[in-house]
Amino acid sequence: MKVSKFGGSSVASAAKFKQVAQIIQADKERKMIVVSAPGKRYADDTKMTDLLIALAGKIQLGEDYVEEFGKVIDRYREIVTELEMSEEIITEIIDNIDSLISLHKNDPFRLLDCLKASGEDNNARLMAAYLQHLGEEASYVNPKEAGIFVSDEPGRARILELSYEELPKLKEREGILVIPGFFGYSEQGNIVTFSRGGSDITGSIVAAGVKADLYENFTDVDAIYSVDPRLVEKPCEMKEVTYREMRELSYAGFSVFHDEALEPVFKSGIPVCVKNTNNPKAKGTFIVSKRKVGDQPVVGIAGDKGFCNIHVDKYLLNREIGFGRRLLQILEDEGISYEHTPSGIDNISVVMREHQLTPEVEERVLDRIQTELEVDNISIERNLALVMVVGEGMNSSVGIAAKATEAFAKAGVNLEMINQGSSEVSMMFGVKADALEKAVQALYNTYFNKMYSISYSSVK
Amino acid sequence: MKVSKFGGSSVASAAKFKQVAQIIQADKERKMIVVSAPGKRYADDTKMTDLLIALAGKIQLGEDYVEEFGKVIDRYREIVTELEMSEEIITEIIDNIDSLISLHKNDPFRLLDCLKASGEDNNARLMAAYLQHLGEEASYVNPKEAGIFVSDEPGRARILELSYEELPKLKEREGILVIPGFFGYSEQGNIVTFSRGGSDITGSIVAAGVKADLYENFTDVDAIYSVDPRLVEKPCEMKEVTYREMRELSYAGFSVFHDEALEPVFKSGIPVCVKNTNNPKAKGTFIVSKRKVGDQPVVGIAGDKGFCNIHVDKYLLNREIGFGRRLLQILEDEGISYEHTPSGIDNISVVMREHQLTPEVEERVLDRIQTELEVDNISIERNLALVMVVGEGMNSSVGIAAKATEAFAKAGVNLEMINQGSSEVSMMFGVKADALEKAVQALYNTYFNKMYSISYSSVK
Repeated sequence: MKVSKFGGSSVASAAKFKQVAQIIQADKERKMIVVSAPGKRYADDTKMTDLLIALAGKIQLGEDYVEEFGKVIDRYREIVTELEMSEEIITEIIDNIDSLISLHKNDPFRLLDCLKASGEDNNARLMAAYLQHLGEEASYVNPKEAGIFVSDEPGRARILELSYEELPKLKEREGILVIPGFFGYSEQGNIVTFSRGGSDITGSIVAAGVKADLYENFTDVDAIYSVDPRLVEKPCEMKEVTYREMRELSYAGFSVFHDEALEPVFKSGIPVCVKNTNNPKAKGTFIVSKRKVGDQPVVGIAGDKGFCNIHVDKYLLNREIGFGRRLLQILEDEGISYEHTPSGIDNISVVMREHQLTPEVEERVLDRIQTELEVDNISIERNLALVMVVGEGMNSSVGIAAKATEAFAKAGVNLEMINQGSSEVSMMFGVKADALEKAVQALYNTYFNKMYSISYSSVK
Repeated sequence: MKVSKFGGSSVASAAKFKQVAQIIQADKERKMIVVSAPGKRYADDTKMTDLLIALAGKIQLGEDYVEEFGKVIDRYREIVTELEMSEEIITEIIDNIDSLISLHKNDPFRLLDCLKASGEDNNARLMAAYLQHLGEEASYVNPKEAGIFVSDEPGRARILELSYEELPKLKEREGILVIPGFFGYSEQGNIVTFSRGGSDITGSIVAAGVKADLYENFTDVDAIYSVDPRLVEKPCEMKEVTYREMRELSYAGFSVFHDEALEPVFKSGIPVCVKNTNNPKAKGTFIVSKRKVGDQPVVGIAGDKGFCNIHVDKYLLNREIGFGRRLLQILEDEGISYEHTPSGIDNISVVMREHQLTPEVEERVLDRIQTELEVDNISIERNLALVMVVGEGMNSSVGIAAKATEAFAKAGVNLEMINQGSSEVSMMFGVKADALEKAVQALYNTYFNKMYSISYSSVK
């Protein structure tokens, strides 16, 4: 049995609904369907979630929200009309949104969260109705009914373990089950959303909960590429990638997969297949526990901008026990998370996402470091990018670092930092943000383009 | 005016005393002389300091110590006899040691520290007497008289700032001043030693205190080599090296210079010259504030064994604010200092000197990490070596990392870790301890042996 999740672009219009239905009908194993809210139909289109956020905004301001409400309903109505379905489902959706508004109108934060969740919720109702319309035995399953219980943290819910006791019961139900992604219910009965892109999380939880044979993740690309196609032209596809590799890639700028979504399937060892709704015959990319490394130790390259580096100098720093801990404590007090802390004998650097350092936070942090740690010098380097080379075969392969650094040197990219030694599947490089494209292209040429390839294997 | 320090091997015998006297007499600028205790005269010889430690041991056990006392006096007497000096100085030395023993016999820790210090102290008395014997105006200056005041931490004294108010007064004194290295006096009047090799520290403090033009450090090599000659055969000499470079090299296994000794001269910007007592005409190595980098961005390579790595895995670790800080707190509670903390998305490693992890400490640390941080997995990798590539030109030079990693790859050395990004003058590599020689040799060939050289400069 397969759990199949369809992302926003796969359920954005009537035409897409037809494609999805065909995919579901083509394989009887596709019994549990998780859907996102309608995504963009064209480049300038507005996603359903954003229409719902706009609606919530108007209500919060106490302003008239007829227009925004209308836009939401029109997106659903267009799908229903084109699919020649009964208007009944639209009445159901209107009632649902109305009841959310009257229930939460005095709690703007909760209202926003529920309205956002309704995008997925009502789209699941619509998909179930459409499958019934096509003659399939299909039913909408509310996350509460399914047993998706989460922590009561709107916008960043975490799954509660008790869900995994409830979810297996879904297998007893007949027909195709359509479950909305993106949210669950708190134990108090509140609707609570995961972080954005969280339909992937729902799909993964359901797949783990029912012990599916495969978790299919339908999106709009034939496969996951070895590198972001915005950085390198026509990069090669990944046939197989491990959970660990995928997680490292997602982290450093790969937007294909939601970072957190792989945890439930990873823990249950359920393979994932990323497939294309528009071209379901393409084999897609399999995300698995283990893969044969073969002659390709590196599976992908990712890069992301928006990092900065706080650099601290203090003579004889390395003899001061507790210095690093006290530095990290200051950052922790400000709620700052960091990526990496390269260190020297008399200095230490902390690399972090730049957006965390607002002017006020920066002033407080620098002031505390200066006065509490009595440093000789402190400076911030901005506009950094991190580049990750990822692959299960890296740890055992002599020369991986050599190839990377040689590629950078030949491309004239100066390395601001190298972080290698903890992860067995990745190597991290810091470069200036404006060198990111050049750096990624150089690495891609080295690892994936046979024309540029150099081998160190003969000397081992 | 120069401060000239003579290490243990330079003052080990009567013949060495003659050489030192000639060196002092050859340059009228050599007015402040700092001496170590007599060192080894031949490979199997015992250093004076070790004779004194043996003596202290016997006294502490309440055993008869005539033999040990005799060995100490015999070393001095041999020098006095060969130099045809008056026996008077020997009586002085015996009285000195006798008085230390009767003063501290009930305080074994203090006794040990004072006896160790007496090795330098009495050797300075002897050197001053010999210079007088040669007709020079020379005098022994006790560290208390010189104004060397230190914290009351036997074996790891730190200089007190008030010393720098006292030391300049030395310049008012006539003739050659001979000052024992290795110890100072606490404000309570106790003799307190620096860490071992601390005569370098005394020399450096005196040079800074009297604002010398040059601090000469006489040892038994013509210069400091670019790499440890035990690891690479006949390595090239360093003509000039900066304080920062020297400190990084000392740290990672260069035993030429005591790690802490450069601080006073570094702060006062006084150049240091490391020279050979046996070949004073050799120019030696200058340690300076700034050097011209030219076409040699790397000045030296150092490596040291005896490191280990605690590796921790935890899924979604990078989202846990405070994880790194809490990990370092556990180490701090055990008084463990660490070298480097490479990190990945779901893991972090802490590299430290292995000797700190006694079985009991290891058990406590691992247990606390496991239970308090709820990690998925924890492991220790032992027998690691760290290799440092050091040079002021590294930061601005594209391809330094590439050359290093290529050298490792070609030599078949697997890189356990790379730490680059904080220090402007060094890059740190982790390799298995048994690959240290191969790794250092490979780097030496790359950076210093023109035959192996590859240039990336043309592509910048």
